[in-house]
Amino acid sequence: MSIATVSRVLRNLPSVTPETRERVLLSVDALGYAPNPIGQALRAGHINAVALLVGDIGQGWYASLTRDMQVLLEREGMDLVLFNLGRSESRLNEVVERVISLRLRAVALATSDQIPSATIARIWRRLAEAGIVFIAIGHRVDGLGMPSIVYDDEEAGARAVSHLAQRGFAPIAYMGRIEKSMTGQVRFAGYLRGLIQNGLERDPSLEWSQTDSFRFTAGYNTMLDVRRRGVNFRSLIASSDELALGAMAAALDLKLRVPEDVAIIGFSGLEWAGYVRPALTTLDADTAAIAEQFSIGLKSALAGSSDSISAVIPRRLVLRDSA
Amino acid sequence: MSIATVSRVLRNLPSVTPETRERVLLSVDALGYAPNPIGQALRAGHINAVALLVGDIGQGWYASLTRDMQVLLEREGMDLVLFNLGRSESRLNEVVERVISLRLRAVALATSDQIPSATIARIWRRLAEAGIVFIAIGHRVDGLGMPSIVYDDEEAGARAVSHLAQRGFAPIAYMGRIEKSMTGQVRFAGYLRGLIQNGLERDPSLEWSQTDSFRFTAGYNTMLDVRRRGVNFRSLIASSDELALGAMAAALDLKLRVPEDVAIIGFSGLEWAGYVRPALTTLDADTAAIAEQFSIGLKSALAGSSDSISAVIPRRLVLRDSA
Repeated sequence: MSIATVSRVLRNLPSVTPETRERVLLSVDALGYAPNPIGQALRAGHINAVALLVGDIGQGWYASLTRDMQVLLEREGMDLVLFNLGRSESRLNEVVERVISLRLRAVALATSDQIPSATIARIWRRLAEAGIVFIAIGHRVDGLGMPSIVYDDEEAGARAVSHLAQRGFAPIAYMGRIEKSMTGQVRFAGYLRGLIQNGLERDPSLEWSQTDSFRFTAGYNTMLDVRRRGVNFRSLIASSDELALGAMAAALDLKLRVPEDVAIIGFSGLEWAGYVRPALTTLDADTAAIAEQFSIGLKSALAGSSDSISAVIPRRLVLRDSA
Repeated sequence: MSIATVSRVLRNLPSVTPETRERVLLSVDALGYAPNPIGQALRAGHINAVALLVGDIGQGWYASLTRDMQVLLEREGMDLVLFNLGRSESRLNEVVERVISLRLRAVALATSDQIPSATIARIWRRLAEAGIVFIAIGHRVDGLGMPSIVYDDEEAGARAVSHLAQRGFAPIAYMGRIEKSMTGQVRFAGYLRGLIQNGLERDPSLEWSQTDSFRFTAGYNTMLDVRRRGVNFRSLIASSDELALGAMAAALDLKLRVPEDVAIIGFSGLEWAGYVRPALTTLDADTAAIAEQFSIGLKSALAGSSDSISAVIPRRLVLRDSA
């Protein structure tokens, strides 16, 4: 038995007969060395871990998702390797190559950034060739045959508009990333649908596209700016709780009453949103449900199913004082 | 050359001559297989990744630390494997064994939970035997010869008292985990020192020990409870921003003015704390500085230094409106 053969077996390469493979593994096992996941991974071809690729771990939603994914994977005896993308597509490609060379079992790609379908399809194929499961979180790509888990953001956007319209809070503005965010676009589409459903006119001066990030300061500065310019609106749907709190802080600093002068709805359901005053009305984000669906999809894929799962998680409108 | 020999070399076990080892590795390399970090790790004995063990990734400070550690390790070409401890000592032992079997390069243990020095020392030895670097974050154990990175929490606690005393906000209460939290104990010691330095009497009715967790609801309920019982105090130091916001929400719901009736100082410097109203005065937590010190300690340890580093990171008092 040559070193080359041993190496081929340990590396799980083809062109070794099952008999030889078994003999090599038995010999290796017979050495009686303590359980060694790296050795086991080499034999199985993979380390029993999942790569979670997140847009920005410093944001509340990603941290919450990371916690729930970690709890769930732990239950399944798997580890979590965390990669922070920080909004760079070249970084995404690097990370995918890194995951392949580490031979992790699966990749969960969770970012609100807009990634071209062609890029996702390429990543998916590249990982599939390496025997690595790929599941997109937040990007609906099941139409392309790829598994994905998404929130029902369009429905959520429309529901927020209906809620505000019914309470007499029109004109309703929208604040969020639109151009470069997948989830942002879907929420914005829901906002537009909500306007139509409630017989409201679309007004481009009420569409406040945030180009930099989903953050407190962006929300704060945008609110100051639209008030300075005298834009006429009675309420605001912000596509994250961070933007919503920033906008609310600016409104309060301008001595506006929330919700009487400006009603505000956020997206995410972060824990602090219930403890700010006025407490923030928000469309919650059930990260535990995402993790559960990921687990189901992973098990199905590891069991050899080629069905692409597609889970759509509803968002609940959590009514508090801000709208 | 036997399979046993190849295996010993690949597993980096002793009793192989350097010549044989070199010959095996050359043969394996000569197979011309694509770079394979697992194979490389087996040869080097380790995967080029760091395990970050955190108390609770759902809490803002841990998420912030995770982001900064990730950015820093990425710069060094290393990956981050995240383990969430969730306050269980048996879980800690399991994770340590998992890290050893995965042969990661280093462990950063970041939890505010009180862990007996004997336990930390045992973990440190266990990891050292496996050639894995160990650095404690938040537990000062350099006196025992172990590397640690901590905030100067005693100084911070004392400074918070001085600030409140100078503004006429005595009597000053303290709210936080005391018994089972290492950092909580140190902050509380700083609070007691601050009282002495400012000529204030210690009053056990103003020491509100939180036994469950560092959370919004605990802060909220405690504030309701002490007000209901008529406890006399003018200000509050809360050992996390989460507790502080919960307490502030309860105070505002009780129609108290902040800071005029109750002044509040938190700990952590989380981003939302600057956008709640009134904006929260807090002792910030420079997680980027922790990550930098970790990097320095890791490089030193990997270079073979046996000096135990001990970095103490100061906390800045960020003055806003709540105190």
